[in-house]
Amino acid sequence: MKFELLKSDTQTKARAGVLQTGRGVIETPIFMPVGTQGTVKAVNQTELKERVKAQIILANTYHVFLRPGLEVVNKAGGIHKFINWDKPMLTDSGGYQVFSLSEIRKIHEEGVYFRSHLDGAKIFFTPEIATDIQRTIGADIFMAFDECPPYPCDHTYAKTSMQLTHRWLQRCITRFNETEPLYGVAQNLFPIVQGSIYKDLRIESAQFIADQNMNGNAIGGLSVGEPAEQMYEMTELVCDILPKDKPRYLMGVGTPENILECIALGIDMFDCVLPTRNARHGYIFTSKGIINIKNEKWKLDYSPLDDVFTPEYSKAYLRHLIRCNEILGFNIASIQNLSFYLWLVQEARKHILEGDFLTWKKAILPIVMNKL
Amino acid sequence: MKFELLKSDTQTKARAGVLQTGRGVIETPIFMPVGTQGTVKAVNQTELKERVKAQIILANTYHVFLRPGLEVVNKAGGIHKFINWDKPMLTDSGGYQVFSLSEIRKIHEEGVYFRSHLDGAKIFFTPEIATDIQRTIGADIFMAFDECPPYPCDHTYAKTSMQLTHRWLQRCITRFNETEPLYGVAQNLFPIVQGSIYKDLRIESAQFIADQNMNGNAIGGLSVGEPAEQMYEMTELVCDILPKDKPRYLMGVGTPENILECIALGIDMFDCVLPTRNARHGYIFTSKGIINIKNEKWKLDYSPLDDVFTPEYSKAYLRHLIRCNEILGFNIASIQNLSFYLWLVQEARKHILEGDFLTWKKAILPIVMNKL
Repeated sequence: MKFELLKSDTQTKARAGVLQTGRGVIETPIFMPVGTQGTVKAVNQTELKERVKAQIILANTYHVFLRPGLEVVNKAGGIHKFINWDKPMLTDSGGYQVFSLSEIRKIHEEGVYFRSHLDGAKIFFTPEIATDIQRTIGADIFMAFDECPPYPCDHTYAKTSMQLTHRWLQRCITRFNETEPLYGVAQNLFPIVQGSIYKDLRIESAQFIADQNMNGNAIGGLSVGEPAEQMYEMTELVCDILPKDKPRYLMGVGTPENILECIALGIDMFDCVLPTRNARHGYIFTSKGIINIKNEKWKLDYSPLDDVFTPEYSKAYLRHLIRCNEILGFNIASIQNLSFYLWLVQEARKHILEGDFLTWKKAILPIVMNKL
Repeated sequence: MKFELLKSDTQTKARAGVLQTGRGVIETPIFMPVGTQGTVKAVNQTELKERVKAQIILANTYHVFLRPGLEVVNKAGGIHKFINWDKPMLTDSGGYQVFSLSEIRKIHEEGVYFRSHLDGAKIFFTPEIATDIQRTIGADIFMAFDECPPYPCDHTYAKTSMQLTHRWLQRCITRFNETEPLYGVAQNLFPIVQGSIYKDLRIESAQFIADQNMNGNAIGGLSVGEPAEQMYEMTELVCDILPKDKPRYLMGVGTPENILECIALGIDMFDCVLPTRNARHGYIFTSKGIINIKNEKWKLDYSPLDDVFTPEYSKAYLRHLIRCNEILGFNIASIQNLSFYLWLVQEARKHILEGDFLTWKKAILPIVMNKL
């Protein structure tokens, strides 16, 4: 993996770059659609490539591990072949889902015992197991196994948790270095900065993560309920410490506003379920603002949902489909929201390269966040 | 509307024809995907055209009347513009849904009082109202308002019901002749033969319907629970009476086997929810046979779901998606089943034209109905 920084903005800390992977190039800043169970919900692979113009998508290790299970993915020749996606992919480590989905879990130094949210089966994840699982899944980028502390949490808990995450990271790296990719394409392990909303912990964690000298670095434990200002403060603090010549991935973020602000702080990669989840509830992002399509005001509005991304379907039609829970409504809305997100980061990139990112950001933000 | 009979099979009663409508040509025999609420479930309009190769689709008057409602469709400029579909469409009259979905309904000479299955609202449909509604929806072909008797029903009920359907038909035709299409494209009213499983009634009804001299004729009240042999018997009886130079539409039929047998009896048009509904339950029709994709045997089968129609997704992947209730699974399965149905009728047509329909039918039936 090679990261080339094409331009650093002079008025903000925004960067435009190119990330070269074994399965092609990713232009940063980038948004990565989330394909939880090996599918980006309600959008097929052709649409993801040709309409959404996704360059990299995510899968969740926890979900793929439970269903279809590792045997199915392994014998397919890895997740790319299994789902028919030949561009880059990223898997999270499963840590976040273990802590958010599992009602019963027990953390030890060695790892985490938890019960499947599907059938209650008892499962044990360790840094080594999470690494092996991600080798088997075969994503181009995979994540260190970490503990994601809840918000709020006190300083003592956050510090203990961060230290555990750091020890687990070293075990992940050891296992990563002892093993090889299974499907002939290089894999990259990204470590994750933790530390909740505490500056001293975030600084300590960022320095620890930077010292590992991996091919890319991630920031976790944000966008978990804290005020946006704290998220930005932590992100800036951490970005200033993480190496400039490696991509920076802010996990699970966020709204269009969050993404633009965090690009300005030096983030290169984002993922979030927001565009797809909101789509299924009729909450639509467009280049002219935000639409709650269930609203009566769209009932007789036959203008395109979006002139650029979904010109063939009207607001009135999408409103009808979403009100009826029709799958086509989820499909149109998800294509729209993801296309918007990919457009937003590519526009940001263009303006970073052209040198007017800050001006553009100030102009576009009130438009895209405007509730129509 | 003009129906041209290109060839009548010599060994069976099968026919190949061309039906010209104001929105393009339909090659018969044809299968019409059902788009209940103005969308063929889980398939978008681009996929319907380019992959499924649908030539005409259905919408249900009852459903469209309830949601989005007539005002929305009318102000859009009709159903085609509302859903972005420029090829032919057909609407049923609402009769079938009134009798199957509404728990509370009361039949009078004038019409039917029933309650919406959505909110219990009291609604009154008459032949005139059903005709006006279908004028407002604007499909190229629309259906007379009939009573669809249940199966089984006794001869007395079937006869009384048939006579009511005939009186209602005359009122539909009168209203049809008094009104004009709203959107500048010709509409055609098809009458419906009823009579349950009673030969004398089917003969009487077929003669009555034939005498109306409409542009096409339909057979209703079959595939409602009676044995297949009775359905074939009634279909043959009726086809022998209906005029040769008009298209014949067998409503709500059926399995691939039903369709091939009824093509052989002289049917030109079919519709059924089977391919899409079965798809969502993982019951897949392929050119090599029938697959229950949830079956364990497909777990590690990475061969394409179907080499021709869905070559990009494997059986193992579809199994995973359907087991997880992922929308992409419904999408792939629905594209597959509808593509298969359209392929089946087009193959039948090809072999009618080539003169070896019966030989082909005998060879293909055990293959496509074979459970893999």
